[in-house]
Amino acid sequence: MTSLALIEAAAARLAGHSRVTPLLNAPLLDQIAGRRIFVKAECLQWTGSFKFRGGWSAVSALPPGTKGVMAYSSGNHAQGVALAAHHHGLPCVILMPADAPAVKIANTRAYGAEVVLYDRATEDRDAIGARLAATRGLALVKPFDDAQVIAGQGTVGLEIARQAAEAGIAAATVLTCCGGGGLTAGIALALEARAPHLSVRPCEPAGFDDTARSLVSGKRERNATTTGSICDAIVTPSPGEITFPILNRLCGPGLVVTDDEACRAVALAFHHLRIGLEPGGAVALAAALFRQDLPDTVICTASGGNVDAGLFTDILTRFEA
Amino acid sequence: MTSLALIEAAAARLAGHSRVTPLLNAPLLDQIAGRRIFVKAECLQWTGSFKFRGGWSAVSALPPGTKGVMAYSSGNHAQGVALAAHHHGLPCVILMPADAPAVKIANTRAYGAEVVLYDRATEDRDAIGARLAATRGLALVKPFDDAQVIAGQGTVGLEIARQAAEAGIAAATVLTCCGGGGLTAGIALALEARAPHLSVRPCEPAGFDDTARSLVSGKRERNATTTGSICDAIVTPSPGEITFPILNRLCGPGLVVTDDEACRAVALAFHHLRIGLEPGGAVALAAALFRQDLPDTVICTASGGNVDAGLFTDILTRFEA
Repeated sequence: MTSLALIEAAAARLAGHSRVTPLLNAPLLDQIAGRRIFVKAECLQWTGSFKFRGGWSAVSALPPGTKGVMAYSSGNHAQGVALAAHHHGLPCVILMPADAPAVKIANTRAYGAEVVLYDRATEDRDAIGARLAATRGLALVKPFDDAQVIAGQGTVGLEIARQAAEAGIAAATVLTCCGGGGLTAGIALALEARAPHLSVRPCEPAGFDDTARSLVSGKRERNATTTGSICDAIVTPSPGEITFPILNRLCGPGLVVTDDEACRAVALAFHHLRIGLEPGGAVALAAALFRQDLPDTVICTASGGNVDAGLFTDILTRFEA
Repeated sequence: MTSLALIEAAAARLAGHSRVTPLLNAPLLDQIAGRRIFVKAECLQWTGSFKFRGGWSAVSALPPGTKGVMAYSSGNHAQGVALAAHHHGLPCVILMPADAPAVKIANTRAYGAEVVLYDRATEDRDAIGARLAATRGLALVKPFDDAQVIAGQGTVGLEIARQAAEAGIAAATVLTCCGGGGLTAGIALALEARAPHLSVRPCEPAGFDDTARSLVSGKRERNATTTGSICDAIVTPSPGEITFPILNRLCGPGLVVTDDEACRAVALAFHHLRIGLEPGGAVALAAALFRQDLPDTVICTASGGNVDAGLFTDILTRFEA
């Protein structure tokens, strides 16, 4: 069970290895939103997303004698685990869907991992993974339903608590980009202990709002499909078994944004903060910009920036500032 | 005369108003360069460039009773002075060339400044500026040849000294994007006092290498023209009267990069660091990536990120990773 103690232990293992990412803001962005927006720029984290924190936390907590690690991921968790394993001198196999963004596949390989591609439509990822894990003795690092992964993501929350205090933010809503809920759960646990005046609301793409619906019904709802959103990084079938009880206790209600709103947020983050976000990493900022029922001050996670150049240039062209 | 004491005083006035920008790096960028590259990401500074530091430093040092401020600038100094004046409650007039990047003109206005456009080819900027200053009682904030402006830019050097120590960097060359030399002189003065093991080399676009040539000849050389480079932010006629003696004592030799190399650096910074740079803000990174006579570890200033979307998408398209 992830607790503040587990998050603090992860922070200690991450110290000097992960980057303390800045809390950015810009007057011109605030003008557009009509509220103060602070952006926790995890796109500037090693490997371009917060996933490096959870990957490092999990890999650094593996028992001595572990032969290697394995992960399933469409890209950000893949890169985080790959680089963490590389730094720990462990072999790493990543199982990725063949239609994952090219930059994510290329970077995962560049971090030293062996990438095994599979077809989402026709192949059984879990069966391939189980076979690889069994035959090669690899430890599986799950993307969110793992106490040490959640603890690693929770270090974002420790930093937000400290940076919000430094910025004199007395009250705010923290908006998270939410897939399986590892980042959201970790942040919520950290803030519960360190900054209880900061509430947490998960943000999701329209049509893939399993978490928002689960927070309404009180049980884990599923998405009808896991394909068809531009926000590939945060599309998951349902909230996690471990993450959902945490979300249900501490977070909500959920917020939903359209793909176009996420893309507009990508363009505005580029123009006003000079950061590169992928659409899935911009849904929290999109909610901050385009939803009305929010307080005067919001803090958004900008959770990832691993975007193909073609998609990014298309977004900048379509959503000229 | 700018001294460490003046830089430290500027740092005290800037505390809580400017951002401590991160020192970024990325394993995949190091792989490409064949050396360790750290990037001081001043594109993440308020107004998108280090110029906010100098602007704030100068505006906050004006005598009581000052009626307003004025600056000449193609864009980054304009925005820095405009926002600093706005925060100090002072009227601000910025004289900008009509062919400055649209985003820089728009943002300068959005920060509350009155923008007066002039034609670089046919109008005399200094005459227009002198008339405005005289008739409206405005204090001129020069872009680089001003002790308080240099002191403000020198706070980048104080941060580099501290961040390099935290990162365990024992020796490195610091590469700066150099126009009139305010940033370079400020950093060199700060490092002379705080990190004398870090040497400073200014970087310029090919054909506009007045500083490199001046460091060879020992006197202030001029560029043949001040138009025709994509690196508009750092094209100046010659090193400053105040800045050059500092550069001549502490910096060099200069490095020169082509426009294409600057653009490739823009693309690589986007792909591997997820930051948006303008070409003029990427010349130091370009030198770090593409010049050979450099040590194993370099620290580059990424001095600005105010780039039009059209140019940026063109660069990403031409220099696909």
